[in-house]
Amino acid sequence: MSITSAIRGENVTAGNEQMTAGVDRETVAALLERGRELSTPVLRAAVDRLAPPMDTVAAYHFGWIDAAGNPSHGDSGKAVRPALALLSAEAAGAAPEVGVPGAVAVELVHNFSLLHDDLMDGDEQRRHRDTVWKVHGPAQAILVGDALFALANEILLEQGTVEAGRATRRLTTATRKLIDGQAQDISFEHRERVTVEECLEMEGNKTGALLACACSIGAVLGGASEADADALEEYGYHLGLAFQAIDDLLGIWGDPAATGKQTWSDLRQRKKSLPVVAALAAGGSASQRLAELLAADAKASDSSDRNDIESFDEEEFATRAALIEEAGGREWTSREARRQYATAIAALDKMDMPGEVRRKLVGLADFVVVREK
Amino acid sequence: MSITSAIRGENVTAGNEQMTAGVDRETVAALLERGRELSTPVLRAAVDRLAPPMDTVAAYHFGWIDAAGNPSHGDSGKAVRPALALLSAEAAGAAPEVGVPGAVAVELVHNFSLLHDDLMDGDEQRRHRDTVWKVHGPAQAILVGDALFALANEILLEQGTVEAGRATRRLTTATRKLIDGQAQDISFEHRERVTVEECLEMEGNKTGALLACACSIGAVLGGASEADADALEEYGYHLGLAFQAIDDLLGIWGDPAATGKQTWSDLRQRKKSLPVVAALAAGGSASQRLAELLAADAKASDSSDRNDIESFDEEEFATRAALIEEAGGREWTSREARRQYATAIAALDKMDMPGEVRRKLVGLADFVVVREK
Repeated sequence: MSITSAIRGENVTAGNEQMTAGVDRETVAALLERGRELSTPVLRAAVDRLAPPMDTVAAYHFGWIDAAGNPSHGDSGKAVRPALALLSAEAAGAAPEVGVPGAVAVELVHNFSLLHDDLMDGDEQRRHRDTVWKVHGPAQAILVGDALFALANEILLEQGTVEAGRATRRLTTATRKLIDGQAQDISFEHRERVTVEECLEMEGNKTGALLACACSIGAVLGGASEADADALEEYGYHLGLAFQAIDDLLGIWGDPAATGKQTWSDLRQRKKSLPVVAALAAGGSASQRLAELLAADAKASDSSDRNDIESFDEEEFATRAALIEEAGGREWTSREARRQYATAIAALDKMDMPGEVRRKLVGLADFVVVREK
Repeated sequence: MSITSAIRGENVTAGNEQMTAGVDRETVAALLERGRELSTPVLRAAVDRLAPPMDTVAAYHFGWIDAAGNPSHGDSGKAVRPALALLSAEAAGAAPEVGVPGAVAVELVHNFSLLHDDLMDGDEQRRHRDTVWKVHGPAQAILVGDALFALANEILLEQGTVEAGRATRRLTTATRKLIDGQAQDISFEHRERVTVEECLEMEGNKTGALLACACSIGAVLGGASEADADALEEYGYHLGLAFQAIDDLLGIWGDPAATGKQTWSDLRQRKKSLPVVAALAAGGSASQRLAELLAADAKASDSSDRNDIESFDEEEFATRAALIEEAGGREWTSREARRQYATAIAALDKMDMPGEVRRKLVGLADFVVVREK
């Protein structure tokens, strides 16, 4: 069963009205396109403010130029966050354009975290390209990350409004959580056991918080009440957890051609992602066998600078993946994605917003949980 | 001639009234102590908010605990910035306490930059202790730096006032310049020639901008006009350049026992600091000989991963230092420190403030330029 059908199947069975409550795929595509079109010029102008060579390094990271400095039209990501930030403004009754500084600020913070996380995690590839630290060196990855973070605050605060101050505060809170999540993620790699609750908390920090901010920041800039902004954050937070659950499935069983990552990517990095911790928590013989294998991997890795696990052949990863699935980690994570999706959609009812905007937010949620990359 | 006497000598000769216009050394010591006493508890409470192990790593960086986690009372720096931020509030007619969130935010940004710069520059020692990346690894240095940066904005914005929004905007601008300065500093290491103007611009970004912010942020929190805040920033910016000129002198001729750095520290790192670029710009035989030596060093370093220069003996650095001095780089930098000091003091006349506060600001400026570490 593919990930797509695993998710879609359950939605069709258990909550068909949810799927039909959202707009169709063409409308979602148009929303993503609108987010990109309105935010990219502002994002590029912001990046152009950076002193050389940081402007060039950032342009490489965003896929606007290649490693040699020539213009490029690389995969710049799904652009879900800008689309959500613009819809967020509309949810508060403002024009989508009001959300643009928020969309850009969130993108800047997201990319600041990618630059630093790729370096901390030693990830050499992102979106089918060499990561910044690999091409331009660790110092530039640190520095340009810092610059994007500062730029995010600058873009918001130069609006000079009370709303922009409120938006910056929410973005700052989200960024702190993002950093907490990365700290937890790193510490989990050195721990033998991580509970499902700890994993969900980490993923809420690392993925939920910034998506929550993307979903509320446009509304805040449009003058929404704190309660309405909180409802939109709740939608975004749980959507982020649904997104991450799917990501965790793709990190083990995703198609490398679609994800742009190595096969068994998360297993190679010994990530304690949801399918892994759920399988370990499940008990039973597959769970027990998996625990023994992972403990042995950790021991070998600690004593030999990770080279052992890097020399594993495909078969050894396939064994671990099969045990995770047998222990129920794959199915649990798939169900968790659906639970988080449902909680996200339910949060939309806490805010009075135009019906068409609500349908678009549901449509984007569908897009986020039904994907192969 | 020691650095102290070089600076003090000229002040006594050329501007004795400036020295006597400031408060005495005991009052300066009391101002520094007040800054530390009022800001440290708030700083510690802020750091305590960080998720483990970031709180521990940050506590090590600030010198509150040693590498083993035991309480420690290490050298936590001169604490000039907090003292200035509190005086800044008083310059605007507010209580010194009003400046505390600003003092803490500036310290957090300053320490964020130290954590990242030490890693980027490969510096293994700071304040006579191993740097964070050396003790806790590069990932923690990146992560905790990020966290301190985010925390700085959080501390200010949670005040929830319009003034806090203005203060955050100034801090963000300063942080962007700080990052620009570090980018310039790194790029200079790979360039054969850097002009005196480029060096001053870099140092203005790297040191002047944040000291400028420290000097205005208390006033902004105290409701000062933009013009008054600008006058205080001008004072702080030039004081920062004076501070940095002294630092550049100490980086070559400072006493390692006082500075906590290696002998010839900046020469070892091939820093194009003020004495070096001034000497290269001076012309004449010593300047020419220096240029040839440094070009040969750069070539050797590029072709052998910096090991050649690291194996230099003391004599080889002493030769370079003597040439810099002979070409006039030391004397020029010493004069530049005095010029920047005078410009800083003059900026104070652009703002109407209590005479006692002005005398204290002059006293702190004296403290900054007359020091051996």
